[in-house]
Amino acid sequence: MFGVTILGNNSALPAYDRHPTAQIVTLNEQLFLIDCGEGTQMQLTRYKIRRSKISHIFISHMHGDHYFGLAGLLTSFSLMSREQDLHLHAPAPLKQILDLQFSTADTRFTYKLHFHPLNGDGIIAEDEKFSVEAFKVFHRIDCWGFVIREKKKPRKIDVERISGKNIPAIFYDRLKNGEDYVTKTGEIISNESVTIANTPSRSYAFSGDTIYNEAICKNVKDVTLLYHEATFLKDQEERAASRFHSTTIQAAKIAQTANAKRLLIGHFSSKYETLDEFLTETSEVFPQTQLAIEGVTYIIK
Amino acid sequence: MFGVTILGNNSALPAYDRHPTAQIVTLNEQLFLIDCGEGTQMQLTRYKIRRSKISHIFISHMHGDHYFGLAGLLTSFSLMSREQDLHLHAPAPLKQILDLQFSTADTRFTYKLHFHPLNGDGIIAEDEKFSVEAFKVFHRIDCWGFVIREKKKPRKIDVERISGKNIPAIFYDRLKNGEDYVTKTGEIISNESVTIANTPSRSYAFSGDTIYNEAICKNVKDVTLLYHEATFLKDQEERAASRFHSTTIQAAKIAQTANAKRLLIGHFSSKYETLDEFLTETSEVFPQTQLAIEGVTYIIK
Repeated sequence: MFGVTILGNNSALPAYDRHPTAQIVTLNEQLFLIDCGEGTQMQLTRYKIRRSKISHIFISHMHGDHYFGLAGLLTSFSLMSREQDLHLHAPAPLKQILDLQFSTADTRFTYKLHFHPLNGDGIIAEDEKFSVEAFKVFHRIDCWGFVIREKKKPRKIDVERISGKNIPAIFYDRLKNGEDYVTKTGEIISNESVTIANTPSRSYAFSGDTIYNEAICKNVKDVTLLYHEATFLKDQEERAASRFHSTTIQAAKIAQTANAKRLLIGHFSSKYETLDEFLTETSEVFPQTQLAIEGVTYIIK
Repeated sequence: MFGVTILGNNSALPAYDRHPTAQIVTLNEQLFLIDCGEGTQMQLTRYKIRRSKISHIFISHMHGDHYFGLAGLLTSFSLMSREQDLHLHAPAPLKQILDLQFSTADTRFTYKLHFHPLNGDGIIAEDEKFSVEAFKVFHRIDCWGFVIREKKKPRKIDVERISGKNIPAIFYDRLKNGEDYVTKTGEIISNESVTIANTPSRSYAFSGDTIYNEAICKNVKDVTLLYHEATFLKDQEERAASRFHSTTIQAAKIAQTANAKRLLIGHFSSKYETLDEFLTETSEVFPQTQLAIEGVTYIIK
């Protein structure tokens, strides 16, 4: 299972029971938390998410609606006697703030917290099953997006077609990784003729708070699901730009240019009580759009 | 109107839709916020409290469940274009944390925030209608309680009994303040004979997180309503002491010794799903007890 569950879909000022940004990405048994606005720990409880499974937390930037819930969550982990290491990837200034908060409170940690400062673009976390790549977006202060990718799965041996080809079993792992086989007589048995492609690897991109900028497209190219902020409707393009945010149409254009398979929009301004028009406008340009709704899990397929 | 509305009645780990500590004290047209746990701004919305009327915020101590909602609330005030000055009374280390959070976020304030560090015991805020006195309580880190008092109202002139006494009207203000009148012939007209006592001034004491300690009683003596924490039931006395918290019976004993008129208990541990037993145990020692329930306003009378 690879999916994203929305815990907060609103911009800075909480309104209409919409909360500041937080998302849980589930990749098999592992959970990643992206951003952690105020109230995230309550939202985790509300939507029955097993917070103990969170292994990595990614914070996009230092506006409070993206991290004011973090110190509380980290403290609560200790109150719940968490033992598993936790990796926090965030802008460097967050470390000093957390250190001050925890030293002033004399907080006792039951687990090890590893702080990894964000620094430019590139892979920031990976194991054999996934990688996470950070990339800069364009906001009033330093802000990052994240692409979470399944690792490319190896090809499968085509049992019927390989029989009689006399390829030694010891070479099968190299076939799975795409190599051709060369016989003792110099004959080339092409990889495609004896293996089958596995399902393509899926990816989720979270693009942070950003003004419209096509430079993002190269970072989120071909992703399976792109989350892009759409703080305002299309008639507020100037207002959006002045606040370093995007509109519906702009989010759609990024998805289109980047050739994303699907688009999820969120970070809605508190000036809007209802969200239908966000979907209508965005879908006009990019039909495979969904609204980020709190409590809903979007499967990445 | 003088009353306290509970926004959070739970201890550190939010549970059962109970929130960390926050209370709104209403005194006529003025609102005071005492403590500001994570989610306080959402609770203000939920219970339809006019946050723009908050003039003073008091933070008891630097454990996160008492202030992690503050940076968000202060930021939201600006997003709502607040213009009125705001007075924040809190332990000194909070200033550095807030300064870092706001400078890193490049937060633009629309109003003036006055930071007043807590420092020992004494009056920390007052005007012609109220006074707020801080006093140290006994927790794992520095922690304060607060007593909010109406200013003593002047006596009223007894129109029937003063007639014929030939006291000049210019002396009436001094009569209201309790002075006797001395006639030109040296006769004393006692204050009580020509004035009526006004309703007695009321007071609310919030006693912060504290281990059982009778030294608190002198600070909260004779208050109209005492809020005292009761984190644990009576069978957890050792556990309470080891964590610098109190039990039901201990809260009741403080109320009794201090001669409080009524007692409100809160800061319930997350280990308890239901609260009935808190009331039963506390009432056995101090019958005028109520449970602090979120969303409920307790009138101070």
